[in-house]
Amino acid sequence: MAMARYCWNLLFAFFLEGRLCPGTGFVLPDVRDSSVRNCSATPPYLPATAVNTSLRLQALRQTMQPLNISAYILLSTDAHLSEYIAPRDNRIAWITGFTGSAGTVVVTETKAVLWTDSRYWIQAERQMDCNWELEKDSYVSSTAEWLIREVPEGKEIGFDPFLFSIDTWEAYHVNLNPANRILKSIPENLVDKVWTDRPPPPTQPITRLPDRVIGRTWQMKVTQIREQMRDNPYKPTAVLLSALDETAWLFNLRGNDIPYNPFFYSYTLLSKDRIWLFVHEGRITNEIKDYLNSTDCQTEDCVQIEPYDSVRQHVQQYLNGTDVRVWIGTEYTTYALYELITPQNKLLESAYSPVLITKAMKDLTEQKVLQDAHVRDAIAVIQLLMWLETNVPKGGVTELSAARYVEEKRSKQKDSKGPSFETISASGPNAALAHYSPGNETNRKLTVTEMYLVDSGGQYLDGTTDITRTVHWGTPTDFQKEAFTRVLMGNIDLSSLVFPSGTRGINIEILARRPLWKAGLNYGHGTGHGVGNYFGVHEWPVGFQSNNIAFRLGMFTSIEPGYYQPGEFGIRIEDVVLVVETKTKNHLTFETVSLVPYNRKLIDTSILTREQMEWLDRYYEKIRTVVGPELERQGLQQERNWLMKQTEPFLSSGLAVTLSTLTLATTTLFSISFQHLL
Amino acid sequence: MAMARYCWNLLFAFFLEGRLCPGTGFVLPDVRDSSVRNCSATPPYLPATAVNTSLRLQALRQTMQPLNISAYILLSTDAHLSEYIAPRDNRIAWITGFTGSAGTVVVTETKAVLWTDSRYWIQAERQMDCNWELEKDSYVSSTAEWLIREVPEGKEIGFDPFLFSIDTWEAYHVNLNPANRILKSIPENLVDKVWTDRPPPPTQPITRLPDRVIGRTWQMKVTQIREQMRDNPYKPTAVLLSALDETAWLFNLRGNDIPYNPFFYSYTLLSKDRIWLFVHEGRITNEIKDYLNSTDCQTEDCVQIEPYDSVRQHVQQYLNGTDVRVWIGTEYTTYALYELITPQNKLLESAYSPVLITKAMKDLTEQKVLQDAHVRDAIAVIQLLMWLETNVPKGGVTELSAARYVEEKRSKQKDSKGPSFETISASGPNAALAHYSPGNETNRKLTVTEMYLVDSGGQYLDGTTDITRTVHWGTPTDFQKEAFTRVLMGNIDLSSLVFPSGTRGINIEILARRPLWKAGLNYGHGTGHGVGNYFGVHEWPVGFQSNNIAFRLGMFTSIEPGYYQPGEFGIRIEDVVLVVETKTKNHLTFETVSLVPYNRKLIDTSILTREQMEWLDRYYEKIRTVVGPELERQGLQQERNWLMKQTEPFLSSGLAVTLSTLTLATTTLFSISFQHLL
Repeated sequence: MAMARYCWNLLFAFFLEGRLCPGTGFVLPDVRDSSVRNCSATPPYLPATAVNTSLRLQALRQTMQPLNISAYILLSTDAHLSEYIAPRDNRIAWITGFTGSAGTVVVTETKAVLWTDSRYWIQAERQMDCNWELEKDSYVSSTAEWLIREVPEGKEIGFDPFLFSIDTWEAYHVNLNPANRILKSIPENLVDKVWTDRPPPPTQPITRLPDRVIGRTWQMKVTQIREQMRDNPYKPTAVLLSALDETAWLFNLRGNDIPYNPFFYSYTLLSKDRIWLFVHEGRITNEIKDYLNSTDCQTEDCVQIEPYDSVRQHVQQYLNGTDVRVWIGTEYTTYALYELITPQNKLLESAYSPVLITKAMKDLTEQKVLQDAHVRDAIAVIQLLMWLETNVPKGGVTELSAARYVEEKRSKQKDSKGPSFETISASGPNAALAHYSPGNETNRKLTVTEMYLVDSGGQYLDGTTDITRTVHWGTPTDFQKEAFTRVLMGNIDLSSLVFPSGTRGINIEILARRPLWKAGLNYGHGTGHGVGNYFGVHEWPVGFQSNNIAFRLGMFTSIEPGYYQPGEFGIRIEDVVLVVETKTKNHLTFETVSLVPYNRKLIDTSILTREQMEWLDRYYEKIRTVVGPELERQGLQQERNWLMKQTEPFLSSGLAVTLSTLTLATTTLFSISFQHLL
Repeated sequence: MAMARYCWNLLFAFFLEGRLCPGTGFVLPDVRDSSVRNCSATPPYLPATAVNTSLRLQALRQTMQPLNISAYILLSTDAHLSEYIAPRDNRIAWITGFTGSAGTVVVTETKAVLWTDSRYWIQAERQMDCNWELEKDSYVSSTAEWLIREVPEGKEIGFDPFLFSIDTWEAYHVNLNPANRILKSIPENLVDKVWTDRPPPPTQPITRLPDRVIGRTWQMKVTQIREQMRDNPYKPTAVLLSALDETAWLFNLRGNDIPYNPFFYSYTLLSKDRIWLFVHEGRITNEIKDYLNSTDCQTEDCVQIEPYDSVRQHVQQYLNGTDVRVWIGTEYTTYALYELITPQNKLLESAYSPVLITKAMKDLTEQKVLQDAHVRDAIAVIQLLMWLETNVPKGGVTELSAARYVEEKRSKQKDSKGPSFETISASGPNAALAHYSPGNETNRKLTVTEMYLVDSGGQYLDGTTDITRTVHWGTPTDFQKEAFTRVLMGNIDLSSLVFPSGTRGINIEILARRPLWKAGLNYGHGTGHGVGNYFGVHEWPVGFQSNNIAFRLGMFTSIEPGYYQPGEFGIRIEDVVLVVETKTKNHLTFETVSLVPYNRKLIDTSILTREQMEWLDRYYEKIRTVVGPELERQGLQQERNWLMKQTEPFLSSGLAVTLSTLTLATTTLFSISFQHLL
């Protein structure tokens, strides 16, 4: 999963009309909790973690005055609408003190407000001073309603168009315009003007992927995208790529600009007969220049390097041409570029660019190497689980030391490029905060009396991983077992679904929730997200949310139901699966490529169906067959033995025989209800 | 289900990117089939059912010339975006000869094209002459692509804004505008200009519902809607109602303008302090005038009657006022009204008006009387099924006579107001056309060697019904039994789901498909639609499609999975269900209110789970308890005996005891897999 905007978005789509997240059950701490602020005390109480923002806010408000705006909106993204951002783009953290990954900020002359979702309410109360109000919500409509209340009719509301997707702008516009509050695009970010110690732009060189991990050269990919332009009835003459993984994918290049994400700041304008790459030029080595045929590039099969900051000017220049039409994906193009594309007949919109759609279906090489990466990744997680089993009962293991352990084990695996997100290592009540990551203040000791959840992943040259396991080393309660088993049932029911190609994730993710709903339980986050070959851990547009595309052969997604009992424990089971063909004509299913067994102690087999147990046994057999030999190859015999014990079949062949005999003996009575089980 | 646009729409949403309907499998007849046209023969072959449209097309094209439009678009709806339309609004039937309920027509100077979905391909080939091309599709994007090919850039395309919803207009605009083909609103319909024998407007009086079937007076409803206006942050000053069921619901009035639908042509403008009802004035009796306090109405609690045709002028006048903002539901407002509402700050849009949302959640009286109607309706269907069982083997029963039989039995029930749609009575291969209705040419004899599908419903003063049963009187094949049972499993799995309030139908309807998908089967239509208290049989916005609203307590919907084997048979099982509370806190489930048993012969119990059989037994027990006494009350003892036989439990109590004993005896081995079943 990881900490990011994707997870909570689903609520917006799934419970379209509801503002409460059923089953999330997050609660604010008691006011007596000294780790959070108390602004209603006299004088206001601030914990040591709160940041004094008085001077920063004063400076920001001074930049607002000459612009005659009544409010200024900030969003938690960058000019590429990235999910993870570099520190230099974390304007919200600087102005508010709050360092969570998702938030909306509005500053007026007298008020300053942060909107964030339930994951971050406690964190916000710990980090913000009393200059800031916290709104416990993350809907555009809530922010818009607030703006309508606070900003007089006819007044202007400033925003940085580089931080607004077209859809986000549209959502604000649709909400504000009927109330006659006017959005004003201010391309120069006002926080940047006053942020004196803002980190500088990145300078590290950009690198190319080794041939062994790619299935298509950049030239083949360019040809594929141009074919799609040609086949499109609207006859676009160019595709404009804004998302960082679009350019990275197209040219098989990677960078290191954003923590956990192998991206580099860039745009690409790919026309029928030219290719322009906008990038900080100092980062392009001669090797890369050769690789892209960039020297004296004037033709369709070479890449002309242009300065990163010239993109607006260059796109404008292209649009001045006649017979041009630029194809953009609205989900990943900023309003700053979109507002340039006029008149409208020069524009072709789709939710996602043809690059993101093409990239979603992995070719055979990509499929193979991503599965390979998951085998090596499984070794590290198995090492962790075995180590914890031995060492937690002895004491001395903490959330932080466990996180460090798995990260270190991953780093030893071939082609490792570090974690793919900040490890969620959470014991007991900390795990009820679905996106908790341990810090020095919250770090909890792992014990045999608490459940433990670890959600972690690795970046490898050949792939990105993301896996969650929840374990208990003592005696779980019946409720913990039932909740865990229902989460597992949801994971299995969704993983084993047979479906026609073109089925959308949002229409099937109910299968992961149904076993929980039946017991009145639920989880308040999404059910899964795309994963790919050394990109961001949440690879759009694949997944189970309303704005994800339909499933096709060769896509990878995570499946990750959970359950969170506030103040007590958290459960999540996350696996990455590949969309494969079934023997049934024209139908698809998922094949699990994460290869780590579930905690046996937490599985209540009495509520599993025979089909679910058969699935489990098949999955465990695959783990034994694939991971067993790799553990041996790496000389990890103890881990191999541990794995074999953990993956013993649930249904012994003896049981199957017994059942068959019984069925034959009891004849018709049994055949009515049991035949399908056998 | 019924024949209507709702059913095929789902494909657009569900298989968003696919253009083929998986599993529908409809095929065009062989060209040697003399019932269809053959335009590639020399000379072209036309069946007797084809309509000569040469003169009509010529006349239409003459009206197009002076307007300087290159194409003209016609849609199959009326000025209220009704699903069913009156003959006077069936312009497509007149101009094309094709009488199906769904189609898009485009006429250019040289070409004439009909787009329709797979339900109607054969019918179109039977009814159209060779002036017309048939496009086997029903997507706006297809029509737009065709227009872009056929209409030169910069040219205008005419349309009647009264037949376009805002969303439909937007869909055409989004597709055509980037290609520089311009939509031109022509408020006077061009077909009407040349349609010499067009049926006149309706004149029958409008009637009010008896108090015993309503829970809220019109004054209470007006107050409810005004409260929602007041509570809305955008402060609308009026709600404009365009859909016919909106006005009918608000005032508890009904009419008879459209076959099967108790509606009357009308609009309502409900402001904070006035109520205007636009209706053909001659239809308002003195009784209704008194009921609505319409004499000298100048205040907020009376209804001012205005001429039907003055709505545009009146809305325009209202909009000329200051501080006004009109709230509309975009799904049911025509572009003809929408284009008046300028500037944009005078507009408040939502997908559905507050009336449609409020109407969707039935009050306790509405819930009770609608359930009552289903009990009486069940009597008629049970009478049909018993009669068929006796008479089909003797011969002499046809699709048409069976349809007449059930309609006659319904007409005998209290408060009957006729069928709620044209009965689908289909034997053998005819049932594979999911929306087939028998005609004299296609009428098929019912036999013991074919499956038979009957989808029918009634209008009653207290409610609308819609039920489908599929039966076999001989020996079904294994495949027929498996397909039927999988359809039933889907119906049960969806009906028995426990879900949080606010769950959307589109996100759970997979449960009705999953058992079919597992065997590589599917169906190409929606899974269900809202049903209500004496309205249209498809009552929006409740149901399982992408533009339906989330489920809340008190909503009624149909659940109707199916399977269609081209050229052989069709299966559909349709029940109406009510959204009720479960004992699980904050969770809902469905309760089936259609009370007719399924064909026992077609149920393969060996593939049902224990849970599914338990559900069946509980449902049958309810039928026995509720319908049994009503049959007795109506003196239908034979039918009562038939019902009791058909609803015997699948799981005998003896079986349950045997299983318990066995489980105890086999102890742990069994407890692993079977405990949950017992």
